[in-house]
Amino acid sequence: MNSFTPDRTSFEARLHKIGDERYHDKHPFHHLLHSGGCTPDQVRAWVINRYYYQSRIPMKDAAFLSRVTDPALRRSWRRRIEDHDGTEDGTGGIHRWLRLAEGVGLDPDYVSSARGVLPATRFAVDAYVRFVRDEPMLPAVASSLTELFAPKIHKDRIAGLLEHYEFANSDTISYFQHRLSEAPKDVAFGLEWVLDHAVTKADQDAAANALIFKTEVLWAQLDALYSAYVSPARIPPGAWQPGEGLLQ
Amino acid sequence: MNSFTPDRTSFEARLHKIGDERYHDKHPFHHLLHSGGCTPDQVRAWVINRYYYQSRIPMKDAAFLSRVTDPALRRSWRRRIEDHDGTEDGTGGIHRWLRLAEGVGLDPDYVSSARGVLPATRFAVDAYVRFVRDEPMLPAVASSLTELFAPKIHKDRIAGLLEHYEFANSDTISYFQHRLSEAPKDVAFGLEWVLDHAVTKADQDAAANALIFKTEVLWAQLDALYSAYVSPARIPPGAWQPGEGLLQ
Repeated sequence: MNSFTPDRTSFEARLHKIGDERYHDKHPFHHLLHSGGCTPDQVRAWVINRYYYQSRIPMKDAAFLSRVTDPALRRSWRRRIEDHDGTEDGTGGIHRWLRLAEGVGLDPDYVSSARGVLPATRFAVDAYVRFVRDEPMLPAVASSLTELFAPKIHKDRIAGLLEHYEFANSDTISYFQHRLSEAPKDVAFGLEWVLDHAVTKADQDAAANALIFKTEVLWAQLDALYSAYVSPARIPPGAWQPGEGLLQ
Repeated sequence: MNSFTPDRTSFEARLHKIGDERYHDKHPFHHLLHSGGCTPDQVRAWVINRYYYQSRIPMKDAAFLSRVTDPALRRSWRRRIEDHDGTEDGTGGIHRWLRLAEGVGLDPDYVSSARGVLPATRFAVDAYVRFVRDEPMLPAVASSLTELFAPKIHKDRIAGLLEHYEFANSDTISYFQHRLSEAPKDVAFGLEWVLDHAVTKADQDAAANALIFKTEVLWAQLDALYSAYVSPARIPPGAWQPGEGLLQ
């Protein structure tokens, strides 16, 4: 480490500051959602679009795995895929998200078809998968560190949904309950890895920029959602229209 | 299915014929190995180079996973990665291959460093990983179907090694014993998938060509091994030299 490389503690503080300034807990859509201000259709739009993000996370993690030459690192990272895909039918985070979809009156087959997802959501999420597949390992890992900021938003969300929405119960919000224990395990590993491997100023900049990129991926999804379904509520051609994809 | 598309049974027979004509059980290096004709250094060269192939298989399977949108298909395919990487330190196919490496007197750290691997081995194996990452799903799956032909070669190898080589015992050859039960599970799934999805003549040609490609990947590795360490025994610059990487 040369004299121009901020130490581990300063670098970790820099990463946290990115969350303070840019994480999507600050987005107006989340304020609306967690305070009970969303209409049922706005909640449905969120569930449909956020599903696309969830559904691509195991693909993103597999893309990362495909670049890892160390079996021990692969084994550790593999847990993320297991958390989302589960160990058998009816388990895993993606299944739990579809329980939420049913809870808000959506047909889970419609949601999992990814029809009606906003194009801007797809573009942002696909950019994330591509980033993790193609960029160097350090930014690829660093981009996962938004999990550092996730427990707070999950707690706020669980409390807000339970307080304000009839659909919310231990079954429909079990996705978030599970993430409360899963995410900290994932991020503890990822953070150590990034702190260990970002040993030059250039490394630290690359890792910080990757984390910024990831906050942009999350923020852009909520901007698109807000634009389409809150204000100006201009739904792009082909995207989900209220009334579509409902449980029969 | 149109009248020009051979039926499922004929197509399956076409795939088996590719194995009959091209699978690397017919390569002279395997005849030498299984009949006890290899010197200890030729066995070591095989263990070092084949390790590189083993080590890339989970990366290949992760590259495939990263393209799969169906959680159930991902879950099923994930077992291949688990088989190779294991569930904790000291388990999995890669670990078992390193036990074989120790059994033939090689330092497992040397072997797992992939130093000394023949460039032609790397080129062939890396071409396989790239193929599965970039080609359409049907050829990507079809390229795994060399597993159809693997049980016979594993049985021949287990018998041949136990009969002819002092290093061979249940510990050192446990990799092959495990593959006897793992490979048929994998290939039963892959074969069904290919037979279900190759519904046009063009599909069937693409799948058959993918399987041919994979047999070429395997054959090329043995040609390179033979050239370097059997005849003309011309070891390329930088590749493993007898005496290197031995257990202290």
